[in-house]
Amino acid sequence: MGESYGAWLLGQDEALLQHITSANIACGLHAGDPVIMQRTVRLALQNGVAIGAHPGFPDLQGFGRRNMTMTPEEIYAMVLYQIGALKAIATAEGGTVKHVKPHGALYNMAAKDRKMADAIARATAKAGANLILYGLSGSELIAAGQAAGLRVLSEVFADRSYQDDGTLTPRGQSGAMIETVEQSVAQALMMAKEQTVMALSGKKIALQSETLCLHGDGEHALAFAVAIRSAFEKAGIVMRAP
Amino acid sequence: MGESYGAWLLGQDEALLQHITSANIACGLHAGDPVIMQRTVRLALQNGVAIGAHPGFPDLQGFGRRNMTMTPEEIYAMVLYQIGALKAIATAEGGTVKHVKPHGALYNMAAKDRKMADAIARATAKAGANLILYGLSGSELIAAGQAAGLRVLSEVFADRSYQDDGTLTPRGQSGAMIETVEQSVAQALMMAKEQTVMALSGKKIALQSETLCLHGDGEHALAFAVAIRSAFEKAGIVMRAP
Amino acid sequence: MGESYGAWLLGQDEALLQHITSANIACGLHAGDPVIMQRTVRLALQNGVAIGAHPGFPDLQGFGRRNMTMTPEEIYAMVLYQIGALKAIATAEGGTVKHVKPHGALYNMAAKDRKMADAIARATAKAGANLILYGLSGSELIAAGQAAGLRVLSEVFADRSYQDDGTLTPRGQSGAMIETVEQSVAQALMMAKEQTVMALSGKKIALQSETLCLHGDGEHALAFAVAIRSAFEKAGIVMRAP
Amino acid sequence: MGESYGAWLLGQDEALLQHITSANIACGLHAGDPVIMQRTVRLALQNGVAIGAHPGFPDLQGFGRRNMTMTPEEIYAMVLYQIGALKAIATAEGGTVKHVKPHGALYNMAAKDRKMADAIARATAKAGANLILYGLSGSELIAAGQAAGLRVLSEVFADRSYQDDGTLTPRGQSGAMIETVEQSVAQALMMAKEQTVMALSGKKIALQSETLCLHGDGEHALAFAVAIRSAFEKAGIVMRAP
Repeated sequence: MGESYGAWLLGQDEALLQHITSANIACGLHAGDPVIMQRTVRLALQNGVAIGAHPGFPDLQGFGRRNMTMTPEEIYAMVLYQIGALKAIATAEGGTVKHVKPHGALYNMAAKDRKMADAIARATAKAGANLILYGLSGSELIAAGQAAGLRVLSEVFADRSYQDDGTLTPRGQSGAMIETVEQSVAQALMMAKEQTVMALSGKKIALQSETLCLHGDGEHALAFAVAIRSAFEKAGIVMRAP
Repeated sequence: MGESYGAWLLGQDEALLQHITSANIACGLHAGDPVIMQRTVRLALQNGVAIGAHPGFPDLQGFGRRNMTMTPEEIYAMVLYQIGALKAIATAEGGTVKHVKPHGALYNMAAKDRKMADAIARATAKAGANLILYGLSGSELIAAGQAAGLRVLSEVFADRSYQDDGTLTPRGQSGAMIETVEQSVAQALMMAKEQTVMALSGKKIALQSETLCLHGDGEHALAFAVAIRSAFEKAGIVMRAP
Repeated sequence: MGESYGAWLLGQDEALLQHITSANIACGLHAGDPVIMQRTVRLALQNGVAIGAHPGFPDLQGFGRRNMTMTPEEIYAMVLYQIGALKAIATAEGGTVKHVKPHGALYNMAAKDRKMADAIARATAKAGANLILYGLSGSELIAAGQAAGLRVLSEVFADRSYQDDGTLTPRGQSGAMIETVEQSVAQALMMAKEQTVMALSGKKIALQSETLCLHGDGEHALAFAVAIRSAFEKAGIVMRAP
Repeated sequence: MGESYGAWLLGQDEALLQHITSANIACGLHAGDPVIMQRTVRLALQNGVAIGAHPGFPDLQGFGRRNMTMTPEEIYAMVLYQIGALKAIATAEGGTVKHVKPHGALYNMAAKDRKMADAIARATAKAGANLILYGLSGSELIAAGQAAGLRVLSEVFADRSYQDDGTLTPRGQSGAMIETVEQSVAQALMMAKEQTVMALSGKKIALQSETLCLHGDGEHALAFAVAIRSAFEKAGIVMRAP
């Protein structure tokens, strides 16, 4: 959410916010700017959606999706900076930052690199003892959050396919993106009900599933959100912010 | 303070911090980056120096010293963003942001433009009811801070000359910068003792003087700081953070 | 043209390029990035559209539409830099940069400020003696280009209204933007046939009209382009690159 | 060279330029800005030093020394952009860009990654058929330049130690930087006379040595340059631009 920048619009935040319970809001380094952060916080509050910080790499041109080699010290300070900036804006609007979810390449690198994960967990803990850390299910980020004494939530994706080891199929690889509403709903239901996912290979794997993510800039984000919400309601699955 | 950026060093923060009582720390938009902010906060705390946010225009190349036309909404959000980022870093280090002083062109434009001044005062108030706003003595920023219910401090400069109307002689104009220790000390003493200053024209003018500023990137910053501190001690003037 | 940036799309370049004869391509400082510049150059070449450099202020967040106070030396070097970058990309694709048109606030400020205009004209002349400079009709930029020995073209707008003095009604002011195809076509025809325009006040004023501009990010850019092209054909007015 | 940025100074360009024959000038993405590029070009011309483009990653904060994952298409366009920008500025000053040397992490990654190396070589070839490509001796960049039909020069370093495989000891690793004039001179002489280097392990290895580099931001750059120049003169080794 909030991944527009200056004159450039991205995503359908207003529509999407009516169908979700937690929003990860960009903090100005990979996307977003202070005005857009304020606008997005307001929209989240109007829709009763929980506000989360979505810190990313300092790479606007690459939308934070290009790997960057930063030291743990740089990552720690950069994550803290971004959470703090959003906290001030959220507080000014009468809201509260409830969780932290790293963005893009930062999220993916921290899923495998424990030092990066520790830096993010440490920054989150320093930014607020009650902040919940969202990390890729089964990742080093989850482990780092737990080690830092944070409440963590294992995140799974309704718009991305999985590998046999529980990692996401990398963007750019064939089959990485889920393209149909049916597939997205089926995957989301299986995750929520069984805590499993069908990997791209066809193999069913276990996957702790505590929070379900859709990318706000995805082509089908709104359609998937509406369909999943409706399917969950029919199945008696309650969606709510932690 | 903290106006280095990445690999580029600026100022003599470590030495200067031993001679001052309040530091204005750059927040990443005109100078500074998260790592440098953290380092500067630590140095300030080690020296018992009060920490202030020094928000500036988003113009690294121009060091925030080029006028930019931003709307009050843009200024409000941008100032709030920067204060919040520093607050998170200061809090993580066990410190507290005590005051806000806009930087460079933002400071100078807000001295004359009440709408800009109001936006800054509003952002400061939203970032923390106890934050003190530092503004150019006699400026619209002081008036805006008072109207917003903030505690304000009238700032005067020990390294810049004044015009007859109490504004600073613009950089680039002849005589704008005070170049000798003697002049700097004399001006500082007159400000502190008499609440007056000798303008560049030679005319003595009244000037409310509650906090005394030196530019950390100034050539003589350290020499001026040491000499003023010593002169104040001899004169029985106590320097302390508000 | 080429005012997308990284992951953010702006404008309908592919469609628009089929209806115009000259394109002003952003050069990476207010919009555009090297990859987008290359893509836009290719599209222009495929459509037989003349390539122009569209240098702007270094202000991505403000899309180059916020006034910035830069010295003539800074403007000169910054414009030269941007033209050079586009020239290398255009040459690599087998094309040629034919003209230079400053963007946004740089264009508008240079219309009134002769020193800025001279800096732009000087940079253009240094970047290539055959480059044509596009400037606001009747502006200081036209005068500066002529003084620098450049071929200049007086630019008029088919999507903006005019003041009695021949300047554009500033964005944000009521009536600044032309919103209907009829108005746009009528204004374009009057400009092309009579070298006049009906100002917002209703007064008819003289206006040298040598090149006609539509903003690529305008809501109606494509509709206006198609309609004007068709109206010009009916009226026997030939559109071509200089 | 030219690795200052805005208000931040780096290196001792004026002094160093009196002792070298080729300068790699930063192009605004990892360091440098248009004004500094112009100033550095002028200084190079005054000292009869050959001008080279020094394109880097778009990472000011990291000074282009942090690895970034960019596609070959992104690298190609980004390198072309930077060379073009410098060419325009050099040409305006009456100079010519003679060579291209990638900077920092871009240089090091391209030394090992043939696709990146090819992208850089292709951009260099497109920017000018006569441009010479400088690459790490024995690297993929040298191979890519040759494959692209460019004249290449094998670069060696007088301020960095080597591994047994002919690569540089990575920054941050103990012994990476050469710290004494004696060692620097000894290494430079061995390279120039024998086309070998003593690796950090003490092993003597073959190393094609056609151009000798000092980092302009290095602590000892000036001392090393003066001493090497003098040692070369005594040894009858002629230093000149290619």
